[in-house]
Amino acid sequence: MAQPVDRSALNALFLDARTHSFWLDKPVEDALLHRAYEIARMGPTSANCSPMRAVFVKSREAKQRLLPALMEGNREKTLAAPVTAIFGNDSQFYDHLPRLFPHADARAWFAGPGNAQVAATTAFRNGTLQAAYFMLAARALGLDCGPMSGFDNAAVDREFFPGGRIKSNFICNLGYGDPAKLFARGPRFEFDEVCSIV
Amino acid sequence: MAQPVDRSALNALFLDARTHSFWLDKPVEDALLHRAYEIARMGPTSANCSPMRAVFVKSREAKQRLLPALMEGNREKTLAAPVTAIFGNDSQFYDHLPRLFPHADARAWFAGPGNAQVAATTAFRNGTLQAAYFMLAARALGLDCGPMSGFDNAAVDREFFPGGRIKSNFICNLGYGDPAKLFARGPRFEFDEVCSIV
Repeated sequence: MAQPVDRSALNALFLDARTHSFWLDKPVEDALLHRAYEIARMGPTSANCSPMRAVFVKSREAKQRLLPALMEGNREKTLAAPVTAIFGNDSQFYDHLPRLFPHADARAWFAGPGNAQVAATTAFRNGTLQAAYFMLAARALGLDCGPMSGFDNAAVDREFFPGGRIKSNFICNLGYGDPAKLFARGPRFEFDEVCSIV
Repeated sequence: MAQPVDRSALNALFLDARTHSFWLDKPVEDALLHRAYEIARMGPTSANCSPMRAVFVKSREAKQRLLPALMEGNREKTLAAPVTAIFGNDSQFYDHLPRLFPHADARAWFAGPGNAQVAATTAFRNGTLQAAYFMLAARALGLDCGPMSGFDNAAVDREFFPGGRIKSNFICNLGYGDPAKLFARGPRFEFDEVCSIV
């Protein structure tokens, strides 16, 4: 099979793409967020469980609700970003499985107190996979990403996911990064340091 | 900014790509696994912590060591797949931070008994992001993926990650899937069901 993705796409998604902290004054249309989601949602999750939920913080008012929950070093860049995505996971994702995975009684694999640990792990793992898909889909549409874990999850949950069912995972600024303000890229492990073939 | 990724690349990565359970009898070269890793490693992780570790199970002997740990329904397809990736996370990833993130004493954010929970969460979140990057990089190179969570993690760890430092996350068959044996795609949530813009 021929390689289906050309070099320019690999560059845009991975090889030239960088985490940004400085943003150009250029808005992100809502339609682009819809489009990124509609691409990302096709990525695989366990039993198609699709636990990721997202709030896209765009308005000044909503940004002000988010900022106090962030570590100091994440505030200025988040205020400047056109959009900040809050990725969360639905801890009761399994209630949707009769619709998402009708071939089997998949709900029974995760529901109930005896399955609390496997449900929590499944929500975290698969919601994180989906957030990765989202970031790469956003890059595929020309957006830059600035993911961050430095915030108070409980405070974000109270403000943006009231009710307790959805747990925040990480947040990610989205927009058009200023390439002039990038630092040198951090080193990565070589294959043989972290992978083996047996 | 123009959309940097064309429709055929979106199709290969997301829109037409499917989880496969039936594999063509066509080998996967080691060089392709190296190349997929070298693409995927460029994706973002928190403080560049890069906790993912991977074992690519190719040989008959190694497959036989893996099979007993799998749920019955995952055995036949795993035996038939040219490669099965075992994705794990280094629970002591922070020992590499002086090299990977030299700008700050990032090791101190995660090392020590008081940081055990944040370290475990960081390893799981970021190793899972990297596994998502790997699957999409593999698809970008023409491979198909068949990710699975249905296995005994402790048994896989004993066999493939002895020592206790690396914890298995999920496994993923890799190869060239048989498109004739795909079922209909599962439904996905609409944007407004799981996302909001505020």
